Parts: sequence; C-alpha cells; structure tokens
Amino acid sequence: MQHVVDFIQANHDRYIEELREFCAIPSVSTKNEHKKDLERCAQWLADHLRKIGMENVEVIPTKGHPILYADWLHAPGQPTLLFYGHYDVQPPEPLELWESPPFELTLREGNLYARGVVDDKGQVFIHLKAIEAFLRDGGRLPVNIKMMIEGEEEVGSENIGTFIEEEKGRLECNALMVSDTSMLGRGLPSVCYGLRGLCYFEVEVEGPKQDLHSGSFGGGVPNPINILCEMMAKLHDKHGRVAIPGFYNGVRALSKKERQQLRRLPFSEKGFQQTTGARKLVGEKGYTTVERIWARPTLDINGIFGGYTGEGAKTVIGSKATAKFSTRLVPNQDPAKITKLVRRHIERLAPPSVKVTFKVHSEGKPWVAPFDHPIVQAGRRALEKGFEKPAVFIREGGSIPLVTTMYEEFGRPCVLLGFGLPDENAHAPNEHMNLENYLKGILSIAYFYHEASQASGKGVEAS
Amino acid sequence: MQHVVDFIQANHDRYIEELREFCAIPSVSTKNEHKKDLERCAQWLADHLRKIGMENVEVIPTKGHPILYADWLHAPGQPTLLFYGHYDVQPPEPLELWESPPFELTLREGNLYARGVVDDKGQVFIHLKAIEAFLRDGGRLPVNIKMMIEGEEEVGSENIGTFIEEEKGRLECNALMVSDTSMLGRGLPSVCYGLRGLCYFEVEVEGPKQDLHSGSFGGGVPNPINILCEMMAKLHDKHGRVAIPGFYNGVRALSKKERQQLRRLPFSEKGFQQTTGARKLVGEKGYTTVERIWARPTLDINGIFGGYTGEGAKTVIGSKATAKFSTRLVPNQDPAKITKLVRRHIERLAPPSVKVTFKVHSEGKPWVAPFDHPIVQAGRRALEKGFEKPAVFIREGGSIPLVTTMYEEFGRPCVLLGFGLPDENAHAPNEHMNLENYLKGILSIAYFYHEASQASGKGVEAS
Repeated sequence: MQHVVDFIQANHDRYIEELREFCAIPSVSTKNEHKKDLERCAQWLADHLRKIGMENVEVIPTKGHPILYADWLHAPGQPTLLFYGHYDVQPPEPLELWESPPFELTLREGNLYARGVVDDKGQVFIHLKAIEAFLRDGGRLPVNIKMMIEGEEEVGSENIGTFIEEEKGRLECNALMVSDTSMLGRGLPSVCYGLRGLCYFEVEVEGPKQDLHSGSFGGGVPNPINILCEMMAKLHDKHGRVAIPGFYNGVRALSKKERQQLRRLPFSEKGFQQTTGARKLVGEKGYTTVERIWARPTLDINGIFGGYTGEGAKTVIGSKATAKFSTRLVPNQDPAKITKLVRRHIERLAPPSVKVTFKVHSEGKPWVAPFDHPIVQAGRRALEKGFEKPAVFIREGGSIPLVTTMYEEFGRPCVLLGFGLPDENAHAPNEHMNLENYLKGILSIAYFYHEASQASGKGVEAS
Repeated sequence: MQHVVDFIQANHDRYIEELREFCAIPSVSTKNEHKKDLERCAQWLADHLRKIGMENVEVIPTKGHPILYADWLHAPGQPTLLFYGHYDVQPPEPLELWESPPFELTLREGNLYARGVVDDKGQVFIHLKAIEAFLRDGGRLPVNIKMMIEGEEEVGSENIGTFIEEEKGRLECNALMVSDTSMLGRGLPSVCYGLRGLCYFEVEVEGPKQDLHSGSFGGGVPNPINILCEMMAKLHDKHGRVAIPGFYNGVRALSKKERQQLRRLPFSEKGFQQTTGARKLVGEKGYTTVERIWARPTLDINGIFGGYTGEGAKTVIGSKATAKFSTRLVPNQDPAKITKLVRRHIERLAPPSVKVTFKVHSEGKPWVAPFDHPIVQAGRRALEKGFEKPAVFIREGGSIPLVTTMYEEFGRPCVLLGFGLPDENAHAPNEHMNLENYLKGILSIAYFYHEASQASGKGVEAS
C-alpha cells in the first residue's frame, strides 16, 4: 500500500487541476438546453476512465442522458465492487448569489467552489484517482471494480432502472459502493447506513383562462394563487406533522437503542442552525433535529410561482399558479402508496372553481442497512486510516434512489462513504468541497479497496 | 355641433394611425428600464397637444415620471373642466401569450390590440381628438379645458399628489372628467359613479440564509414557502370574507335601493364567467357578483414566488419567498387604517423561526358620487347622443386613486365616462379596445363638452 499512499500524497495539485476540467462542463440534467453538455461530460469522463487504466469503457445512450460503464476485473478470488455515482449537477440558479462563476473551480480558504464539486463530481473523481494510484505503471487493483456513472441522479434517475434490468449479468457484484453523502462534521469521517426516499410532485391551479385586472374582477373570480396557498397550507398540521391522511402508515418507529445512539453522536444543534442561518430550528413535534432529518418523513414545498413577480406592483389576478413539492420517506414507506395518498389529498383540497393538475416528477425508496456487515466494517476501517480519526455511523436526509434499487435487485450490501460536509451548499449557490476531505477521500478509498480485499471471505463473497 | 360631428366621422382612419404612434412607446411605469420611454411618451403627447391647439403645454418633471399639463381657456362664462388621464401602461408580460406584438397596434376583428390601448392611451386620445375637432381651423371649444396627464397611475400615482398641492391655483376647475373605466357591456354606454380604493402590499419571508438541500435539511429548518402559504391562507375565512380583524369596520352597507338598482342592470353572470374563463364564479358569501366586484372590499394575491420554478425538479428549500397582494376598498374604508390592520395581521401570523418583511407599495381611497348632479347628467346625455342608445349608471371594481384626491382637494364633482369593455384584457395579454367604442367615444366626448356648456348655470358653476 505504501507506494499507493506515496503516489497520492505527491499528486495533490494535479488532482485539483483535473477536477477543474470536470467541473467546467455544465452538466445540468434538469434543463433540456444542457443536453449536449451532458453528452460532452460523459465523453470527458469516458476518456479519463480509459486514461487511468479502466477497461471496457462505454458511453451508453438512454432515453435521457447517457450512462457510463467501465470495469477492471483482473483480481481473481477477490470481491467485485460496483461503484455508482453521477456526473449530472443541480441548476446553478440564482446565479447572482455565486461569489465565483459556478462552472469555474475556484480554491478559496481551503475549499474548492463549483456547481457539482461535492454532489457528485468531486466524490466520483475520488474513486478515479484512487484507482489510478493502483493501476499506474502497469499496477494492479486489490479488488475487481465495476463502475456505473449516470447523468440523471438530480432528476430522479429515470432511465438507470431499465439499464440495470437489461445489464443485470454485466453488473453482478459482491458489494455496492457509493460516495455521494456527507460526513457528520469536520474531522468526523462517516459511514452512512440510511437514506430517505423521495417523491417529487408538481401541482398547477388554473382559475381564469387568462390574467385579469384585479380591480375589475377581484372578489368575483377564483384567484389561483389564493387557492394554491390554501391548499399548500393544508399539507401540515400545527405540530409540524404532514397532514396527508395515511402518510405515516408503515413508518418504522425509531427504536430506543437507535435514538440513544443518535443522541450520542457529536451533532451540534447550534452548529446546524448556524449552518442554515435560520433564526430557529423547527420540525415535527417530539423529535430531535437529527431524528427529523434522518429518520422521519417530511414534506417541503420546493418552488412556487404565480401572477406578477417582477419589480413594483401589478394589479393582476393570475390565470395559473404552480407549486413543486416533495416528500422525504423513511422505511417502510412505499413511494407508490405515498404518491396515491398525496394525489388523493390534493384532489380533495381542490375546490370546484379551479382546474387542478397533479404531476409526479419522481419516486424513490428509502433505505437502511445493517452496519455490522464485514464490507461496511471495511469501510469504517478505511476511513479511520485515511483520516487518522475514529469514524461514526450516520444516516442521511437525502435520497439516492438507486441504492435501494440495487439493494433490492442484487441483494448485495451497500457501503456509503461520503466526503462532503453538511454546510457545503449542495443544491445551493456557492457549492463547495473541503480540499482536505477531497484529498483524504482519495486516500480513504484507496484504503477501502485494500480493506475490501482483506474482508474477502469474511462475509464478502469473492467472485 | 354638426361640423364637429362631420369632421369626426370623416377622420376615422387618421384616428387609428395616430393612436398607433402613441401605443408604440412602451411606457411601462413599473420598470426602471423604461424610464426613458416614459419621458419620450410624455414628449410625444406634449407635441400632439400643441398640434391640436392646446396651450401652455408643459412636461413637468417629478421624482418619478413626468406629468403633462395643457389648457385652453378662451370660453368666458363657461365652466372649466379638468381632464385627468395617464399615459403609462402595465408591463406586457407574459409576452408569449400575445397574439400580436404588445407595442404594435393591430386591428383584428373590429378591435385595436396593444398594451395600454384601452388603459388608458386610447381613452386619453379620445379627448384629444374631440378637442381637435373643435379647435381645427381656428375654431373654439364650448367650455374651458385643463388637462393633467400622468405617468404613474399604474404604480400608485405617487407624485401627482404633491403636484396638485403645489399647483392648486392653476388646476382650479368646476368639474373633473376622467375616461379610464369600462362600459357595462357592448352597446351599453355607462356613466361610472363609484370606484374601489386600493392598498398594495408585499411580504417577504426569509428562513435559511441561503437555499438548502431539501434532503439534508428538510424537516429540520423553517421552509419559507410553506410558511408564506400558511400565512396567505389565513387572509380569508371559509366564507370568502377577508379574515383580517377590523377589515370590514367602516364599510358602508349597500342600501336596499342600490341593491335593487344593481340587480336591474343588464349584467349577465354567465357572460361575466365566460369572459374570465373560470369554471365557477366565487366570492364573499351573501352577495351577487356585481356587488362583490363593485361594492364590497376584497383581497387578492397578485404574485407569489419562491424556490425553484424552472423546468423539472430541484430538491431545494428556498431561502426566501415573497408575495404581492392587494386589497380593494369601498367607502368608508380608510387606506391608512387598512394598511395598519394588514401589517398587524401579517406580524401576528409570522412565526418566530423566520424573518418577515412587510412593504406598502401604494394606498388609494375609494370613491362614490351622487349621480343626480347636473354635470353627471350632462355626461349621460352626451353618451346617449354619441352611442344613440340609453346610458346606464354603474360602479367599477378598479381604482383611480386620483379621483378621490381631487374630489377631496377641490370639492368638485367628477364625471367618469369610460369607453372600455370588461373583457378587453386591461392588465393582461392581448389588451384591446373596440374600434367602434373608440370612435363613438370621440363623438360622445365632443357632445360632452357641448352638454357641459349647456349645463352651465344648472349647478355647474362657470369660471
């Protein structure tokens, strides 16, 4: 291992320069105008995979954005790890709040700033650089590796399900590994053992057929914004609970043991509050913040729009108003059932004076793993070597729909080793990744490949 | 009068061409980027006023957009009428819904299409063309006329109050006349005797200091959109009444006589509904649509915005959410008191987890007039001659803040002769004015000057 470690230590500058190229491609998957950029990004990544020594590199077209496949399978008797990551990013808007251009990687006060740098380009690149450190100069990896990197994670991973079904044989593995989560905090390397699911909806309320003068018509016609607000206000009760009938059916209660364990974590409510900048933390009554964001289902309106929103005043009654909103789910909520309940609730709330359209953007299942599995323990040991600190076991409020899909499809354990920090603005302006975590991440993943090889035979079946 | 009537009949085509020039100037007062266009529009109008024979034409700068003044005072012993109108227009957005460019006057199926054509450029121009028909070739007007045309009506007439105070002497008159309202319907020439007042507000809710990932933070932080919706939902009760404590204090109840009279008007609920395109008409319980829009106070959200509103899905908790909303007021509600009540209600609704900012855009008083006044009756006779149809007395749901100001300042009656139609999309895409009403309007106003001269001595004090 020492030559691998030495090589990583000696190449820090190059790791930044190469990541700059990756982040310069605006691979915003939610916007059609960026379709070409996603293709370009996939090509760039394919070229890089070939350069570091990965084999069978393929850019596979889908109905949406392409999926990348690559492998290196020359470690007989060793386990095969399937890496999953994504090269697509969130939209950079609002642009005016960025301190440096979102697609120009900028190093400032120990952090690398760029859209997608932590979610998930930097974390994908950590694996590429760890692989490179083994394979350079005709070297070998201690395990077999398959990689599957998609371009639709930020828009609900619509096409990768079909790909996995069709390519089940090629994707066969002993364990799945993902780096798309955060550490609990600075200096706290973390293994994530739970993710929330996600259902994302959009509702449109149409009142008049066109915008109307609020003087001549106000008081006599249904105002879609008034009505949308009234509907949205009925999605929660006064205790911060989601008010959709049946929503909490099937929610697995937190065990006393897990609640105790979560309370022991070095999680600072005050630090969390400061990170958000909110005056006060709020949420479902009866739960701590950690429980609320990791282990309880929630509902948030993600966007709302209607009428005149420009400068000054316009006395108008808008024809339409729309809201995007999403639920985060926990085991054992079923996204399909949740969608049905939400749709029914929205239909019930819609008054007969307006036309209400309900749209489902995506559905993703929640996931939790047993953290005593040998491969998960290999992950813990790798982090402790890479960071030279004890690691903690955490859950995540976010969603990686594919983790559940893969888990269900292959029945294989999944190791989530994330190198982000909670205040690094994933999905917000000034997204960044701590430089030290980026570099220690490369080291940790190199150790992980090594540890996974050692764990072979201890429950991690070799291929 | 016959030569005036003949001249008007012979000049229809020119009246359209000249109005096209007026409407081509995008005098959108709410946007700073159009400041130069408003100045250009005022200049164009000043030139035209001079051309038709008006005197003392002046473009008067204000802190906002300029005010135009002009007069013709060579009818000794005759009353002096002060005309008030505005040359500014509403923003044209959303542009994609216009069937012809908003600033290119287009004649289609008997209607003239352009932003501002009916509100209020075409109606201002009706007066100019009536004046021209008298003054051409060294002719004379039967009354004295003063004109005051502002560029801030669509943004709350902020600076004209100061102007009126300062120029009280110069503006002295026997009656005020305004053409900025609508007829009850096609073929129903209408004298308007009541207007609603308007208070326009904006509220901003700030939760987190920046946009946050709805997975990592959702359920643990205040979501400003959720909270704004909950606040906005509490502005009405389930009977469609405004739920702000004290809001209805001072509202003058409709007399049995006026309710009967309103019920006798040829107002079609079904026609009104079809105009709006709404599935159903709704409003305050216990009132007809006409009562709701003319004689009852209301509250409408005019715009709402927050979070991600682009294409597709973004899993974000927005930092801020804003809503613009306005109340329409009736006698004897006091806008200043209403503002106080609304502010207090918003402050009470604001939870401690967020920062709420409340802004007042404008305040305007409601107005009703006694319709048996001789100058109002002169207006009725003029309309009946111009349209060759019986006229009706109506109220308007919209607001012309200046009417009340002038009424209070000078203690003079005001005649509202409007030539719009309720379905002409003032403030919406595809604003238009019926060509026949435009031309009959010119004729009616010419008759009005004549009738006002006849009414002199019958309660209309001559200057």
